[in-house]
Amino acid sequence: MNPTPAEADPAPSPARRGRPRSEAAERAIIEGALRLLEEGTSIDALSVERIARVAGVGKATVYRRWPGGKDELLLAVINALEEPAAKPSGESVRDDLVTLLEWQRRVGMAKRQSAVLRTMTSHVKSHPELWRRYHDSVIKSRHEMLHAVLRRGVDSGELRGDLDVDLLGELFTGPMLTRTVLHEDKELPTGLPEQIVDSVLDGVRVRE
Amino acid sequence: MNPTPAEADPAPSPARRGRPRSEAAERAIIEGALRLLEEGTSIDALSVERIARVAGVGKATVYRRWPGGKDELLLAVINALEEPAAKPSGESVRDDLVTLLEWQRRVGMAKRQSAVLRTMTSHVKSHPELWRRYHDSVIKSRHEMLHAVLRRGVDSGELRGDLDVDLLGELFTGPMLTRTVLHEDKELPTGLPEQIVDSVLDGVRVRE
Repeated sequence: MNPTPAEADPAPSPARRGRPRSEAAERAIIEGALRLLEEGTSIDALSVERIARVAGVGKATVYRRWPGGKDELLLAVINALEEPAAKPSGESVRDDLVTLLEWQRRVGMAKRQSAVLRTMTSHVKSHPELWRRYHDSVIKSRHEMLHAVLRRGVDSGELRGDLDVDLLGELFTGPMLTRTVLHEDKELPTGLPEQIVDSVLDGVRVRE
Repeated sequence: MNPTPAEADPAPSPARRGRPRSEAAERAIIEGALRLLEEGTSIDALSVERIARVAGVGKATVYRRWPGGKDELLLAVINALEEPAAKPSGESVRDDLVTLLEWQRRVGMAKRQSAVLRTMTSHVKSHPELWRRYHDSVIKSRHEMLHAVLRRGVDSGELRGDLDVDLLGELFTGPMLTRTVLHEDKELPTGLPEQIVDSVLDGVRVRE
């Protein structure tokens, strides 16, 4: 659903690993990396060795959890800073679209408030391989969630079925992305998702 | 209207200068810079001296026309590669919005087809002062053109008057920008502007 790396969960959930000791180490590592970044360490200067030292674990522990090393770990740090993903309730297409756009809005706000998140976001964007992994693991699943909502709306007769589903989704997410990604000087007020969703659903033409 | 530097005219029109000899020199300088870039010269390696030599003029001639030197000249080169600006005819808001979005689409196509334009675009974006000048001289006037069309539509009773004009504009330009700027892998087919404009005007909800 969203093209910026600051907008979803790139790492498998810790629960998948299932061992409390690993989870504690994982949290310590992510917090260690985050602390270094917040203290002003540049991403270039960040190393698995420094992160392991700050987290009080061995380098091998970091590589066991993130075999790809620093780059893979960065995606997990982005995830830790992000808003929890939106969960459409499935009751009405209108409300589900508002839920997804409200999540986009909150991610946009989080990015404006966190210099570290912005720095990591640009880092991911400027590294094609990292960006591709972020895209494949995260953005694709957001698009799928959005498209599932839209297809359900077409099937239930709530939405027009004559538009390409990609375009249909962009009519809703495009205006929000314009603000969150392209015009960072513009406000992201409460109620913006509702305004966008209702305007696109009902149209902005005055009917006779 | 549009946040990418590849989308309008940053330089005063040559006609403003009014002397044919200056115009010929100006064209030679822009073409010289463009030739160097097309031959693979990086923007960093580009200098007023090299451009003047290739164009067959003195450095002073370049600085007389572009006192800001290389950076100012780059904005003129971007302009020379771009699509001529759209001119809304003022007959109907729907047609004027299609005209503006069709221009966005053509600029997006031009950028996809020109590596030099893409390179210059990222250069401008990553230099805040250059970006600010581009924004103030170009993007602002595009926004004003779009907003004039929308305000006319509200005044004539064609468009709803209860939405903020910024948001109203983004409902139309956002979906197109999503494709031209954020998802460069997606198509920009003929007819896309009409589809977006008509969908946003009429809404995508199925009415009982």
